[in-house]
Amino acid sequence: MYKRNYILDHIKSVFQKYGFMPLETPAMENLNVLTGKYGDEGDQLLYRLLNSGDFLKKVKPEDLAEGTKAMSPKIAEKGLKYDLTVPFARHVVMNQHEIAFPFKRYQVQPVWRADRPQKGRYREFYQCDADVIGTDSLICEAELMGIVHNVFEGLNFKDYQVSLSSRKVLEGLAEQCGVKDKFMAFCTVLDKLDKIGEEKVTEELKAFGVERASCEKLFNAMNAENAIETIKDFLGDSVIGKEGLDEVSSTFNYMKRLDIPLDKFTFDPSLARGLSYYTGVIYEVKPTSIQMGTITAGGRYDDLTGIFGLKGMSGVGVSFGIDRIYDTLEELDLFPKTSKESSTVLITNFDTVSEAVALNILSQLRASEIKAEIYPESTKLKKQMNYANKKGIPYVLMVGSQEIEKNEFVLKNMDSGDQQNLSISQLIETLNRR
Amino acid sequence: MYKRNYILDHIKSVFQKYGFMPLETPAMENLNVLTGKYGDEGDQLLYRLLNSGDFLKKVKPEDLAEGTKAMSPKIAEKGLKYDLTVPFARHVVMNQHEIAFPFKRYQVQPVWRADRPQKGRYREFYQCDADVIGTDSLICEAELMGIVHNVFEGLNFKDYQVSLSSRKVLEGLAEQCGVKDKFMAFCTVLDKLDKIGEEKVTEELKAFGVERASCEKLFNAMNAENAIETIKDFLGDSVIGKEGLDEVSSTFNYMKRLDIPLDKFTFDPSLARGLSYYTGVIYEVKPTSIQMGTITAGGRYDDLTGIFGLKGMSGVGVSFGIDRIYDTLEELDLFPKTSKESSTVLITNFDTVSEAVALNILSQLRASEIKAEIYPESTKLKKQMNYANKKGIPYVLMVGSQEIEKNEFVLKNMDSGDQQNLSISQLIETLNRR
Repeated sequence: MYKRNYILDHIKSVFQKYGFMPLETPAMENLNVLTGKYGDEGDQLLYRLLNSGDFLKKVKPEDLAEGTKAMSPKIAEKGLKYDLTVPFARHVVMNQHEIAFPFKRYQVQPVWRADRPQKGRYREFYQCDADVIGTDSLICEAELMGIVHNVFEGLNFKDYQVSLSSRKVLEGLAEQCGVKDKFMAFCTVLDKLDKIGEEKVTEELKAFGVERASCEKLFNAMNAENAIETIKDFLGDSVIGKEGLDEVSSTFNYMKRLDIPLDKFTFDPSLARGLSYYTGVIYEVKPTSIQMGTITAGGRYDDLTGIFGLKGMSGVGVSFGIDRIYDTLEELDLFPKTSKESSTVLITNFDTVSEAVALNILSQLRASEIKAEIYPESTKLKKQMNYANKKGIPYVLMVGSQEIEKNEFVLKNMDSGDQQNLSISQLIETLNRR
Repeated sequence: MYKRNYILDHIKSVFQKYGFMPLETPAMENLNVLTGKYGDEGDQLLYRLLNSGDFLKKVKPEDLAEGTKAMSPKIAEKGLKYDLTVPFARHVVMNQHEIAFPFKRYQVQPVWRADRPQKGRYREFYQCDADVIGTDSLICEAELMGIVHNVFEGLNFKDYQVSLSSRKVLEGLAEQCGVKDKFMAFCTVLDKLDKIGEEKVTEELKAFGVERASCEKLFNAMNAENAIETIKDFLGDSVIGKEGLDEVSSTFNYMKRLDIPLDKFTFDPSLARGLSYYTGVIYEVKPTSIQMGTITAGGRYDDLTGIFGLKGMSGVGVSFGIDRIYDTLEELDLFPKTSKESSTVLITNFDTVSEAVALNILSQLRASEIKAEIYPESTKLKKQMNYANKKGIPYVLMVGSQEIEKNEFVLKNMDSGDQQNLSISQLIETLNRR
C-alpha cells in the first residue's frame, strides 16, 4: 500500500499540475451501459449484481431452461465497472450541461473483471487514466507527453522509450502499399516487426499483395535518421497519411514549446495499438532496460460519447499501468526508502515512569510533524524491537531511567545499528532532517 | 471531489502521524464472511454478485419455487462489502502471522448497501476508520482522542463536543439502580435524557423498577461539576462500574500526558452507543453550533476477530463520518478557497504567436510547481473566461500581442476583477505566494 500510494500520489499531483480535475464514478453501472462495449469476451467478464429484494419476480419456471444468457438480464440489472472509459463517457453525456469543456479529468479507481485470477492478473485492479475531451487541439497530445515525462522523472525512472505515431500514418502506409482494403491485416503484420524482423514481415505482407519493392522502400524510410521526412516521401500524395504525419510533427513542435526533453520520444510508424477505437495520434511507453511490455499508453479517439448519444466529442487520453510501473520500480530498485515507512520512530515503553516521559516526547515529535508512535504496553525490549522491525520503522528511541535522568535519549538506527545520545531538540532536528 | 479530498487527505495525514498504516481490502468478499454479521436487516441490504460462468449450474427447476432465500446462495457466492470492520477482521485473521501486533491500521474505502437511495443516503459511500487491535492499553483510546483533536483542528472546525464514557459505567449504573437484568432497556431510556429530560426518563425508568430516589441521586451525580467523582460515589461497590470509571480516568490522564487540550472532552455517563459490540470505552463527537448528529464515533470491543476463529483480540477504533463532516464544514463555510480549485491560473490563447509564448510561460509556471493550464484552442476571450469561471480557476493570464511586446502580462483576479501587469518572475512570485 505504501509503495502503491507513493506512485499514485505522485501521478495525481502531476495530473493536477496540468489542470486535470479528479473524477470518481460509482462502482456500479446499469448493465445496459456496460454490455456491448467490450466485445463478447468482455461481456462475459462483467460482474453482475443480483437485483435487491425479490429478484425472482420476473422469472418464470420455463426461463430456467433458456440458460444464463436469457436469465441474467431478468435477475441482474447492474454490474461492476469493467474499465474507467465507458463510465467516464456515460458521465460526460449525463452531465454535459454542467461540465466546462474542454473537460480535463483524471480518474484513479478500481475496476473489476470476472477473470480466472493468475500472476499479475487480479479480479479487482486499479486503472489510472487522464483524458481531455471536447477539443481537437494537439496541445493536449503534447501535454499528455509532458505528463508522461513528469511522472517518470518524479519517480526517478529514466530507462524508457516513448513510441509515437498516428493511426492515420498507418492508413497512409497501407494506401501506398496498395492494401488500403486490408488495413487491419496490414497493421497486425507490421506490428510484429520488432519480434519477427523485416524479412518475415515482408513475406507475410507479400502473401496478401504488398510487393517486395514496397516493403524495402518502407523499411528504408522507417529506419532512416529523420523518419518523419523519409516517411513523408513514402506517403507521397496520400491525404490521410500526410494528415497523420502533420499531427505527429505538430505534437513534437508543441512538446518543444513546452520544454519537454525529446530524447525519449520517437516517431515509430510501425506502432499499431488500439486501432478499434483510436483514430489519431497513438503512443506507448516501454522500459528499455528490462522486459516489461507497455507500462503506459494512449491516443486520440474521434468519438467517445457517440455510443451514449453525444456525437462529435473528440478526446485524447493516457493510461498509466500502475501494476507494471510498480513491478518496474521494484525490479530496478527505485522505490525510495521512505516510501516503505509507516512511522519514522518508535518510542519504547518500559514502565509507568518511562511511559509518562515517552508520551510527552511523543506529543512534541508529532507537533513537529514527525510520524511517531509509542509501543502501547510496557513489555520486553525485544518484543518492541521486533515490532519496529516488522513494521519497517527506521528508528527506535529508548526512554529508560538513565536517559530520563540525563534528559538525553538514545536514538537507534534500526538499519545500521548506530546509536546517538540526543536531547529532545536534537532529536527533533535529526528526525526532521531526513 | 476537491472538497472531499481536502477532508480525506487531511484525515489520512493525521492517521499517518500517529503511526497507522493504510489498508485496502477488496470490494468483494465471500458471502459467508458477510452474512449473519449485520442482523437480518443488514443481510437484506447486502449486494450479491451473480457467479460468473454458468451460474445456473447448481439450480434445479424446483428451486425456483423455494424463493429468493433458497435460490440466492446457489447463484451468488460473493457480495460487496457492507462496512470496513468485518472485512478488516477477516483480513487480520487471514494474515495474523504476517501482521505486527498491536496492529494500527486505517482504511478509507467505499462500502455498499442496497438501500433505497434518499437525501444523505447513498448506495455507495465512503467509510473512514482507524483501529488498533491486539492490545488493551488505554494509550490507544487517548491517541484516538488525539486524532480527533488534530483532525478537527486541522480542518479549522472548533464548535464540537466529545462525549466519553465506558459501557462498564453503564453496567455499574444499572447494577446500582437494581436493574442489572434489564441492562439494554435501562440504556435505551437513559440515552433519551437529552431529548425528553429528567422527569420523563424517571417515569420510564420507574416503569421497570428503578426507584425515584435512585433516579434523583443518579441525575445529581451526573450533573455535578466533577462527574467522575460523584458517579464514583454513586457506583459504590459495583466492581464493573469502578472498572469502567478507571478506564475513563486513565484515558483522560493519558490525554493530558499527550498534551491534548481537554476543553472539548466530557465524561458523559448517559452515553450509550454501539452496545451490541462495544465493551469498554465509548465516545462520540457532535457539532455544538448546528444540528448535525454524530459526526465521529467509536469505542473498544473485546473480541472483533472471534467470529472468524481468532479469540481474545481486543481492539479500539474511531470512525469519521465523512458525509456529515462535509456537510458541517459546508454549513459553517469552513472550506478554504483553495480546496475548491483545479488550476491556479488559465493562460489565454489568442493566435499562433500568442500560443507559442503562452506555452513557454506555461512550462515555467509548472516548473515552479504552480498548477496551470492553457486554453487549448485559439478562440474568443469570452469563451475562455467562461471556462475559467465554470472551472473555478481564480486567475487568468492574458498573453496578447501588446503584452508580448512589453514582456509584461496581465494577470486578472477572477474574483475581484483586479488586474496587474507582471513580468514572468513577478508572476511566479505572485502565484506562489498564495
